[in-house]
Amino acid sequence: METGDRWVKDLGEQGLLQRLQAHCSPDIIGDDGAILALKSGYSLVVTTDVLVEGVHFSDRTTSAEDVGWRAAAANLSDLAAMGAEPIGLTVGLSLPGSLSVAWVESLYLGLNACLQPYATPIVGGDICRSQIITVAITALGQVQTDRAIRRDAAQLGDAILVTGVHGASRAGLELLLNPNKMPDWNDEVRKSLILAHQRPVPRLDVIFHLRSLSVQRVAGMDSSDGLADAVLQICRASGVGARLEHSAIPMPYAFKLLDPDLAMNWTLYGGEDFELVLCLPRSQAEALVQSLGGEAAIIGEIGEGDRVEVGDRFSVYPTQVLSLQSAFQHF
Amino acid sequence: METGDRWVKDLGEQGLLQRLQAHCSPDIIGDDGAILALKSGYSLVVTTDVLVEGVHFSDRTTSAEDVGWRAAAANLSDLAAMGAEPIGLTVGLSLPGSLSVAWVESLYLGLNACLQPYATPIVGGDICRSQIITVAITALGQVQTDRAIRRDAAQLGDAILVTGVHGASRAGLELLLNPNKMPDWNDEVRKSLILAHQRPVPRLDVIFHLRSLSVQRVAGMDSSDGLADAVLQICRASGVGARLEHSAIPMPYAFKLLDPDLAMNWTLYGGEDFELVLCLPRSQAEALVQSLGGEAAIIGEIGEGDRVEVGDRFSVYPTQVLSLQSAFQHF
Repeated sequence: METGDRWVKDLGEQGLLQRLQAHCSPDIIGDDGAILALKSGYSLVVTTDVLVEGVHFSDRTTSAEDVGWRAAAANLSDLAAMGAEPIGLTVGLSLPGSLSVAWVESLYLGLNACLQPYATPIVGGDICRSQIITVAITALGQVQTDRAIRRDAAQLGDAILVTGVHGASRAGLELLLNPNKMPDWNDEVRKSLILAHQRPVPRLDVIFHLRSLSVQRVAGMDSSDGLADAVLQICRASGVGARLEHSAIPMPYAFKLLDPDLAMNWTLYGGEDFELVLCLPRSQAEALVQSLGGEAAIIGEIGEGDRVEVGDRFSVYPTQVLSLQSAFQHF
Repeated sequence: METGDRWVKDLGEQGLLQRLQAHCSPDIIGDDGAILALKSGYSLVVTTDVLVEGVHFSDRTTSAEDVGWRAAAANLSDLAAMGAEPIGLTVGLSLPGSLSVAWVESLYLGLNACLQPYATPIVGGDICRSQIITVAITALGQVQTDRAIRRDAAQLGDAILVTGVHGASRAGLELLLNPNKMPDWNDEVRKSLILAHQRPVPRLDVIFHLRSLSVQRVAGMDSSDGLADAVLQICRASGVGARLEHSAIPMPYAFKLLDPDLAMNWTLYGGEDFELVLCLPRSQAEALVQSLGGEAAIIGEIGEGDRVEVGDRFSVYPTQVLSLQSAFQHF
C-alpha cells in the first residue's frame, strides 16, 4: 500500500480505475467498451449476478478475496450450466468512499484467482460511490450453437445426475456463523466445509467430459440456489416430473454425524454448492459418472406429471414432495 | 397494478422475476444464461455502467422511467463510441424490499423505450435485496472487427468533430434542481433542456453515416463525462495534443443569455450529453458534418505535445488549458 492511497476517496475515481486496470486485461481495457472475438460457429452466452454487502457477504464470514472468488465462481458456474467456455468478465462496483483501497484490490485478486485456471480476463467495468458495497458481475462465454445445455430439454426416462455433493457450502456457512456448533466435527472436516463455502469451484470441467463422450442432448442447470431448486426448475421448464432416490443423493461424509432430517434439508435446500444437475439418457449418464469420478452420481429419473418427489427404496424415510417455497428467496 | 403486489417484498424474488420477464426477450430469457448469435466477421463489444440512487439519480430529478432510459442511453452511447451495433442488455438490480413494484416496472419501461428504435432486447439480469437502489447495466454489441472506433487512434492533423451541442444536459439538471434560476428562459427552452438531461439520445446513427461515407480510420469516444474529458482522454491515449476553437464549439442557443464563462464551463465540463467526439482526416470530417447535419461541427485539430487548449481567433477570451481535474469525479 502506498502512502496517502489508503481509502477509495483518497484515490478518486480516475486513480482507482488506474489502480484496478493492473488487474484487468491490458489489451482490451481502456476504451468505451471491450472488444472480444468469438470462435466461428459459436454463440455468445451472457449471465449476470449481483452481490450485496450484508445480504450475500459480510465481514464476519467473507474476506474481500473470498467475495471476489465467489462472485467469479457463481458466474462461471452459470456459464458451465449453459455448456459454455468463459471468454471474459465485467465488474460493476459501487463502493463507499471510506472503503480501503486494499479491500478493492483484494476483491480483484480473488476474482482473478478464480478466473486464472480458465485464462479468463476481466474485460471491463465501472465503479461509483455508494453507501454499501455492491458487486455486479456479467460473465461472457461461448458455446457451439447446437450444444448449449438448456433447462427445458429434459425428457421422460432421463437419468438425473449431480456432479458432486450438496450441502457442504451450507454447512460451511453454519460453521462460520456458529463456530461452536457441531463439536463432533474435527478440524479437517471443518476446514473442508468452510472451504466449500468460501471457494466453490465452478464445474467448467464437465463441459469437456460431455464433449469427449459426444453427448448430444443434455438438459441442466447449476445448483447455485440449491439442489431441490435446480430439479424443480428443470422439471417446470421441461414440463415433466421427477423422482429422486434418498439414498442416492451424495452428501458430505461428515453429515453422517448430523440429524438425518437436517442433513437432507441442507443437501436439498442449502444452495451455493455450484455443482451441475444434468438430465440425459441413462447409458450416457452412467458413462459421465464414470468419467467425472469423485462424488458424481445418478440421483433419480425424469417421469410424468409435475411433482418432484424424494422416495426411499429402503422405506426408512417417508416420500417427500419438493417445492420452490422451501428454497432461499432474496426478498 | 394487481392487489397485494404493491411492494417488492410482497412479490418475493421469484414473483418479481416472473413479472419482469414480460419486459425481456422471451426467446433468450429463463435459463442460466442468454444465448446470442453474432454476425460472421464481427467481434463482440461489451460495456458496463453502474447507477446508484442518490448519486446518479434521485426522486427530485428523475422518474423511474427516466432512470431506465438514461441507463440504457449511457450504455448504447458507449457502444456507439466503439462503432458497434447493440445486440442486447443485461440488468443487475439491487432494490429495497419497500420499493414499489410499479417503480421497478417503470424502470423496465424506460429501458425498453430507449432500446426500442434499435430493436435491442433485454437478455438477462439479476435482482437482489439492498438498502439502496443500484442499477448495473452491461450492454453487448457487435462491430466489424477492423472498424472499431478506438480512442488511441487519433493522428496529427486530424480534425476534431462533435456530433452535437454540449452543456444542454447540465443546464437541464440545473433547471430541475433550481427551477427559479434563469428566469430569462421561456418554457419551451426549459422543456428542451430538461429533456436533454432526462432523455439523452445515443448517437448510434453516426455509425451508419461513417459506414456510408466509407470512413476507414476514426478515433473517438462519447462525451458522457464531458466534452473536455473526451478530448483529453483521446489525446492521452493517442499521445497527442489538441487545439479547440472557442467560437466553433456548438452550445445550446439559449446559452447566449448566460454568463459566457458559465456557458463555456457547462459546455466543456457539464457531461452526460452523450454525443460522440471523433478525430479523422479533415476532408472526411467535413463530409461527416454535412451528412450528420444538425449541430455537428468541427471544433479543432489534433496537434503535437500533450496539452489541450481552447483558443479564440477573435481574441475575446484568453487561451484556456483543459484538465481532467476540472471534470466530474465520482469519489
